[in-house]
Amino acid sequence: MRDTRQRLVEASATLLQRQGLTGTGIKQILAEAHAPYSSLYHHFPGGKEQLGAEAVRTSGALYAQLIPAIFDPAPDPPTAVRMFFAGAAEHLRDTDYADACPIATVSLEVSSTSETMREACAEVFESWIDSCVVRLVASGVSEGKSRELAIAMVAALEGAFVLARAARSTEALAVAGELTASAVEQALAQATS
Amino acid sequence: MRDTRQRLVEASATLLQRQGLTGTGIKQILAEAHAPYSSLYHHFPGGKEQLGAEAVRTSGALYAQLIPAIFDPAPDPPTAVRMFFAGAAEHLRDTDYADACPIATVSLEVSSTSETMREACAEVFESWIDSCVVRLVASGVSEGKSRELAIAMVAALEGAFVLARAARSTEALAVAGELTASAVEQALAQATS
Repeated sequence: MRDTRQRLVEASATLLQRQGLTGTGIKQILAEAHAPYSSLYHHFPGGKEQLGAEAVRTSGALYAQLIPAIFDPAPDPPTAVRMFFAGAAEHLRDTDYADACPIATVSLEVSSTSETMREACAEVFESWIDSCVVRLVASGVSEGKSRELAIAMVAALEGAFVLARAARSTEALAVAGELTASAVEQALAQATS
Repeated sequence: MRDTRQRLVEASATLLQRQGLTGTGIKQILAEAHAPYSSLYHHFPGGKEQLGAEAVRTSGALYAQLIPAIFDPAPDPPTAVRMFFAGAAEHLRDTDYADACPIATVSLEVSSTSETMREACAEVFESWIDSCVVRLVASGVSEGKSRELAIAMVAALEGAFVLARAARSTEALAVAGELTASAVEQALAQATS
């Protein structure tokens, strides 16, 4: 059986993705984790902020695995980008537009209020960007251009999630994915010409 | 002096932008608006949801004015896109990374919980997209391609805001703006060739 600490982190991660930080109370986290109140401050002396930051990092690491899982078997980076956005669109539709980015809501909520959690979000985004950069550089794109494309890809995905959830439509994911894939295609063509 | 109804809407709009819906209580809205409790249900029988939806539409309409204000005097759409993202970056820095999109946080929070507010957010995003489409079509880009570019621009801006606020850096806005401007440039070149 998973230990109490792990259950607290996993319950928080799920709740933060669905309803953000402000809407998630300690009581709800403890109930979902089947954990006693005393366990929270035992495992997380920094309280909700410390637990939240760890939940953000855990979700971030889990989603980071999608990058090698999709990019590495793909025939080329533009195909991987298209598959990534198509997969995100499918998952969003399948979850009735609930499961988008695990940390975007939290990130917007805490950016001006909690340095601990803001830093956790920033670290996660940076890890995703770095992971994409490694793969673009391996395809022959320069380090600088790879970073631009990686940032643009993560930004396009996050922004498309905002529009897609509001509109209950995957149109924004399709459009943003295609534009990003085209930019990657052009960078590859320039790099190999 | 502005009337009570208007003060309620404006106070809500400001609070929603800074802290989202879940973190904004009715008491805080009433205090900021210097309005008595009875005025809330007098003006908004639907309560916090109805007031929130009107605040979203009001913020959306205010920000929508930036599109003609920036696009119409600009020499061409790619220049307008660059100015738009540069202006957003400057404003974000000037407000210590607090003022990004007025409705993105709310939009992510309510997309799965309030149809009334989700629809208000979707309407606002659609109005911004439509306003960009009109301007791209006027420059000679086809209706279909204009819609793709407009969606991609709004998505890039929203996603770049998420990354920029978390990282406390405007790098994502610069990168996403340049990528979007380049895509608009290419579409214009194809349209006029």
